[in-house]
Amino acid sequence: MSFVFAFDFPHPVPPRELKDLLGGKGANLAEMTSVLGLPVPPGFTISTEACRSYIVSGWPEGLTGEVEAAIAFLETALGKRLGDARDPLLVSVRSGAKFSMPGMMDTVLNLGLNDRSVEGLALQTGDIRFAYDSYRRFIAMYGRIVLDLPGEVFEELFAAAKELACTKSDSGVPAELLRYLCGAYKDIVEARTGSPFPQDPKEQIFGAIRAVFSSWNGARAVAYREREGIPHDLGTAVNVQVMVFGNRDDSSGTGVGFTRDPATGSKGMYGDFLVNAQGEDVVAGVRNTEPLSTLEASFPAVFVELSEIFQRLELHYRDMCDIEFTIERGKLWMLQTRVGKRTGVAAIRMAVEMVSDPAIGLSREEALLRISSDHLDQVLHPQFATQVVEPLTRGLGASPGAAVGRVYFNSGDAVAAARRGEPVILVRKETSPDDVHGMLASAGVLTTRGGLVSHAAVVARGWGKPAVVGADEIKISSGCMWVGDVKIEEGEEISIDGTSGVVVKGTVPLQAAHPPQEFSELLAWADAVAASRVKVRANADSGPDAKVAREFGAKGIGLCRTEHMFLGEGRLPVVRAMILARTEEEEAAALEELRRTQRDDFMEILEVMDGLPVTVRLLDPPLHEFLPDTRELEVKKAVEGLSVEESRLLYTAKQWEEANPMLGVRGVRLAVLKPGLYAMQVRALVEAAIALRQKGRSPKVEIMIPLTISGAELRLARSWVEEAIATTGGEGIDITIGTMIETPRAALVAGEIAESAEFFSFGTNDLTQMTFGFSRDDIEGKLMPTYLGLGLLEENPFKTVDNRALMELVRLGIQRGREARPGLKVGICGEHGGEPESIARLVGAGVDYVSCSPYRVPVARLAVAQALIRMAG
Amino acid sequence: MSFVFAFDFPHPVPPRELKDLLGGKGANLAEMTSVLGLPVPPGFTISTEACRSYIVSGWPEGLTGEVEAAIAFLETALGKRLGDARDPLLVSVRSGAKFSMPGMMDTVLNLGLNDRSVEGLALQTGDIRFAYDSYRRFIAMYGRIVLDLPGEVFEELFAAAKELACTKSDSGVPAELLRYLCGAYKDIVEARTGSPFPQDPKEQIFGAIRAVFSSWNGARAVAYREREGIPHDLGTAVNVQVMVFGNRDDSSGTGVGFTRDPATGSKGMYGDFLVNAQGEDVVAGVRNTEPLSTLEASFPAVFVELSEIFQRLELHYRDMCDIEFTIERGKLWMLQTRVGKRTGVAAIRMAVEMVSDPAIGLSREEALLRISSDHLDQVLHPQFATQVVEPLTRGLGASPGAAVGRVYFNSGDAVAAARRGEPVILVRKETSPDDVHGMLASAGVLTTRGGLVSHAAVVARGWGKPAVVGADEIKISSGCMWVGDVKIEEGEEISIDGTSGVVVKGTVPLQAAHPPQEFSELLAWADAVAASRVKVRANADSGPDAKVAREFGAKGIGLCRTEHMFLGEGRLPVVRAMILARTEEEEAAALEELRRTQRDDFMEILEVMDGLPVTVRLLDPPLHEFLPDTRELEVKKAVEGLSVEESRLLYTAKQWEEANPMLGVRGVRLAVLKPGLYAMQVRALVEAAIALRQKGRSPKVEIMIPLTISGAELRLARSWVEEAIATTGGEGIDITIGTMIETPRAALVAGEIAESAEFFSFGTNDLTQMTFGFSRDDIEGKLMPTYLGLGLLEENPFKTVDNRALMELVRLGIQRGREARPGLKVGICGEHGGEPESIARLVGAGVDYVSCSPYRVPVARLAVAQALIRMAG
Repeated sequence: MSFVFAFDFPHPVPPRELKDLLGGKGANLAEMTSVLGLPVPPGFTISTEACRSYIVSGWPEGLTGEVEAAIAFLETALGKRLGDARDPLLVSVRSGAKFSMPGMMDTVLNLGLNDRSVEGLALQTGDIRFAYDSYRRFIAMYGRIVLDLPGEVFEELFAAAKELACTKSDSGVPAELLRYLCGAYKDIVEARTGSPFPQDPKEQIFGAIRAVFSSWNGARAVAYREREGIPHDLGTAVNVQVMVFGNRDDSSGTGVGFTRDPATGSKGMYGDFLVNAQGEDVVAGVRNTEPLSTLEASFPAVFVELSEIFQRLELHYRDMCDIEFTIERGKLWMLQTRVGKRTGVAAIRMAVEMVSDPAIGLSREEALLRISSDHLDQVLHPQFATQVVEPLTRGLGASPGAAVGRVYFNSGDAVAAARRGEPVILVRKETSPDDVHGMLASAGVLTTRGGLVSHAAVVARGWGKPAVVGADEIKISSGCMWVGDVKIEEGEEISIDGTSGVVVKGTVPLQAAHPPQEFSELLAWADAVAASRVKVRANADSGPDAKVAREFGAKGIGLCRTEHMFLGEGRLPVVRAMILARTEEEEAAALEELRRTQRDDFMEILEVMDGLPVTVRLLDPPLHEFLPDTRELEVKKAVEGLSVEESRLLYTAKQWEEANPMLGVRGVRLAVLKPGLYAMQVRALVEAAIALRQKGRSPKVEIMIPLTISGAELRLARSWVEEAIATTGGEGIDITIGTMIETPRAALVAGEIAESAEFFSFGTNDLTQMTFGFSRDDIEGKLMPTYLGLGLLEENPFKTVDNRALMELVRLGIQRGREARPGLKVGICGEHGGEPESIARLVGAGVDYVSCSPYRVPVARLAVAQALIRMAG
Repeated sequence: MSFVFAFDFPHPVPPRELKDLLGGKGANLAEMTSVLGLPVPPGFTISTEACRSYIVSGWPEGLTGEVEAAIAFLETALGKRLGDARDPLLVSVRSGAKFSMPGMMDTVLNLGLNDRSVEGLALQTGDIRFAYDSYRRFIAMYGRIVLDLPGEVFEELFAAAKELACTKSDSGVPAELLRYLCGAYKDIVEARTGSPFPQDPKEQIFGAIRAVFSSWNGARAVAYREREGIPHDLGTAVNVQVMVFGNRDDSSGTGVGFTRDPATGSKGMYGDFLVNAQGEDVVAGVRNTEPLSTLEASFPAVFVELSEIFQRLELHYRDMCDIEFTIERGKLWMLQTRVGKRTGVAAIRMAVEMVSDPAIGLSREEALLRISSDHLDQVLHPQFATQVVEPLTRGLGASPGAAVGRVYFNSGDAVAAARRGEPVILVRKETSPDDVHGMLASAGVLTTRGGLVSHAAVVARGWGKPAVVGADEIKISSGCMWVGDVKIEEGEEISIDGTSGVVVKGTVPLQAAHPPQEFSELLAWADAVAASRVKVRANADSGPDAKVAREFGAKGIGLCRTEHMFLGEGRLPVVRAMILARTEEEEAAALEELRRTQRDDFMEILEVMDGLPVTVRLLDPPLHEFLPDTRELEVKKAVEGLSVEESRLLYTAKQWEEANPMLGVRGVRLAVLKPGLYAMQVRALVEAAIALRQKGRSPKVEIMIPLTISGAELRLARSWVEEAIATTGGEGIDITIGTMIETPRAALVAGEIAESAEFFSFGTNDLTQMTFGFSRDDIEGKLMPTYLGLGLLEENPFKTVDNRALMELVRLGIQRGREARPGLKVGICGEHGGEPESIARLVGAGVDYVSCSPYRVPVARLAVAQALIRMAG
């Protein structure tokens, strides 16, 4: 035997560990049968290996014989024969891949029924109607699933039969008509396929097996695997199992259940049951189900047995199980089990409770590995309270959580509406620094362009505010937005889900964010795992942001962007005065004014983060970001002329305008052209630190130079910084000086750069842009979806740090940096710092800390711990 | 002895190989003395090691004693004593670094003169006037050079003495006044330095040595080393040598000469001689010199000796030598020799002739190594016929050769003027594709912005047309240009030198390009060295360009940019029609029209390059390059409104507009969004090749996909290309498919890319931009000069391929590519393909070919051969 394994096959390891070979369903059926000895209808699994072989080179040699032998064994064991006219054996055929996967052939029931055995079924059950109804369903199901016929052709005929029988319920159709329908269905099959409906039960079974194999490469299954990143070469297993009938009589029934409540995590059996029904009836939701607890009264013996099995399964799997069962004439049969899906609240609660439950005895590490970032998102952000929503359109889920509000199309209107007390969704083509006050006033943000690292996405994540970006089906025109023919006017309500990217017209009820009480305990365990090895910091540019970050458990600030301070109210005119300065004196005066305000900003942040390191990045963006839009001014100039002030602004803005600002005069380059700038910032920072020390605080300052490309460049920049520290009297302050590694060259020449750097922080956003030649503003909306859809890239490198080129550069940079300066501190402060898979890769590369937006800190704390646990494992 | 070496010191190797230790001058003096036994005035060299030691830690211990011993040895050998009142020893002190270097202390003559020894000199020469004139000159020279006094204070006094003597010539000043001047000069020295003029000859000598050492770090010397890339830690040697006097009487004289004519290369002594004069008189050009040949009559014995020495030196050095000598009272003394500088014509002619001369027996490899790319530029492009020009301003020399013409500030005016028969220099802030016809009509191009890879620079080099770019002192305003206060109106003449970057107001006479007849022979040798190992191809986009390339010896086309065909006359409307197409039919119709015209373009190029490979790059630039400027349209819209057509153009152009076009939707990305585009281009290409085959030609086509980032992406693009080849019936054609490597990621994942690529071509321009995060348009004008000036980068990476990060990526790319596909063909087609140092690095990394603009092909052929010779050596 090499392709086929009976459920009680004596595998050398517990079958649940053989999902690669047996698929998930098959592995668990074998586990229940052979390890736990539970009442499972007998059957066998055809391995994934058979499927792989089938896909590559057709029906595997020897498989026919193996399947026939397994069936013969079943027939002998049960004393029934396939197709028997008196007491026929009936089986189900189900697919079962390693990962549960929509789009693949699911289930064909009642195989073995034919014109002869249907009589045997009638004889055995004493219920002609039941037998022919089963046969009718089987032909339709087989026709649809195995023979690929449209389901309507059968449904139309059945509707006609109901009309003839003057009934509206399926069960009102009498046995004679059902028998007639069986004939008619067979005719349809023959007419549409050119061959009669297969009467040979083995032919039926082999047809179904072949259909399962083929469905592995069906379009929907392939698309699903693409989306989920499941390899295409796994193949699926096939499970063939003896039928049991929950719809046989009123001492029969079927149910699904969980060993704990998957919504809340509370202990105890939880699930639904239907008397006299088959599994599909429970799922279809046609009849009202009863809670499992009612079994105590209606099936007391079964209830005791089932309760015990639930307990055994949970203890055996050491996790909450999802279970399907059937009762046939008072006898309990277990049909399936697997580790159950759960909400975020339930996941956290169960994980923590199973650690303190001595019977399960979960380790803290195991508990941590059971929590996903989606679970945390669910408890940290409001969610749609219902799964059933009708999407108006979809964009990219850019900042998790759901929001409901009235749409406004510019920031001024949004602010005004918020002042009137309206909840607001700000809808923009894309956002810019001018929209920051409008975004702040809104409950959520929706843009029609841009990607996961667009301005809207980054700012919204920074504030933990729901955002959907790049919803490009939406067209905004004056005072309203359109999606196809649907028009939404200013002030109308919409709902957005920043996790899934769904946009809904009207109000969807929300469920508030409520981390369960076990949340903090779990994250404390995560921190204990990370201990001193890898820290989580936050990207924060203001006191309030820093406060949120600290509350969420950040161990410092990894990126404080000083340019955001330049954009603050009242600051922009001073920044512009500096840029427009015609003399050194004018420039010095403007720098002096900026210094005073920056000092206050720094004091606030350092105070909040007292005792923890705060990495301050000196000015990074190109100067024209602080200047007005030249296009608008040019149009104004042509139409109505400009004031002297405006003319100067236009002239200067055009001087600083760049063809590719991303690759232009920014970061330390700007400081080389305007050397007073960094000195001013450092002085402000040192003064803030000195003032705090005088108040008894312990500021820890890390000064970071952006966009380095060579050792000599950093050496020069470092000399300015050191001079400014010295002239400001900052000798006693805890200050280190480092740099960002965000150009490919910096990563490659990291050795010479490390000579002047006490720390590195990888700016993986820019590094990704330059390594791929991808301008995120230009690529994410238009091109990225196409590239991912066509499989030209496996992942969006702005979401998950590219494991090939990017991580190679990161690893080289760390290695060369630490060779030149042993013990060099290395962090990462790009958007990847809040994404679990990226964190795992970066922790694997040896970073000392990751820094992310304040609201992502819990996710990062968990991800860091998981990465370390997996590395140790 | 460790710091001081007499000229006849028995070095273990020939002293000429000891330039590191002795400097150039000292090494050659020692060679002439100890190896050749020529009549060299005795002396010694203080090594560069002493200088280095002096710079690091002050006057070296032991140096004083060594110098004193060497002087004592000289005194004994010559029977003269320093400062002697009867027969004084006089010496010169000269600097002599490894590389000849302006800005360092040059020469102090007559050291040893003081109030006593001046009388001894008078006694020995019987010429009181000569003695005091020598003393006067010495005090002034010592004061100026060693004591750092301004030369004018001495000159003013001497001018007054001439007035007093009623003479205008120096020699008219009588001995009494000269003696008086010596006293006055000494008073000046004392008044200005606070110390009397040193009377101790040893103090004079040590002062001079110290001054030479210090001049190594003088501002001009440092700047020169920066510019020439000479390391700062070499230090200079100092040569102390016994004085001989060419100005003693009419049986004395001095001369400089070359063993061959340095301007033309013709054989035979060549040089100038002055009777009764010192070396400085020859250089100063005050008196008219005589040709060396006159010595045959005036100094017959010396002439025979000198001719023999010239021959011996040339045979000994196996190269043309530059020689200085002095005759003192009929006795010949050799003062200096070195390998002589030469023009391009002379360099080529001499190199070839010395190979066929059995006495010298130069190998072809040695001959090739003696030619620089500057030499080739000189013979391939017109040059200023005079070295003496007054620059109006300087920019970057972006395309070699000189041009004279009338300035015009836009392309329309330039074309009109050219049609009137005027020679034109097109002056623009920067050029764009719209200026191409104006550039074509001009003799030369001058821009005020942009760098070495700006549009103007690249296009001009492609046509071999002189260009100066980034001359940022020039301000263009309506109808004229300004440099400071100098105004040049439209139509006025200027001259530009695209090699040095000099711009001159008015007309500078030009010297035409005339490669000597030995040119072809030399390049044939270069090709023989390169043989089948490394080929030189050209970047050419049209038949005429391809013709030039083939004439210059290109072995194929390495880059044919198809977008230039899209910009041709009459094409743009069709390209726009394709972009604006509202239906697939409209798009298909436009593509069909483009296909027909592209086919004709391809036929022309393939025909010219018959039998040689032609690499065609499929469309690369972003689409908005083919659309009008949205700013102009927006202004027009605001002022006067737009036509329907213009509105559509504006709308579409805005759709395709990008924040960072360099990192946007271009190259294969564009083709992913518009899949019909590449198929169209491939069909046109294959049809052209089929047509040529039918005419009996042998087209060799290489199809190149630009801007790849992943293996899957190239696999998809390759499938379109293969399908288009198949549907066009191109099976029999010699076609290969490859890709450009121009993103850092492509270099890093070259293994997976090579699976779908038969060749790689490194696009080092874009790779440099992305690796450094440098947009050439934004960086080269503003930032690059500052970065180079401050030493933040050692080289301009757009000129010479960065030997750190860039070359690491290139080497990794080649290695990984060839691991995946052994024998993978690798080339390079960026601007670096025409730059010798870059070529050396790339050949070292194992490229199979380099491709450059047609006019750079000879330079590249030579550089490839030189690189291979050096690698073998």
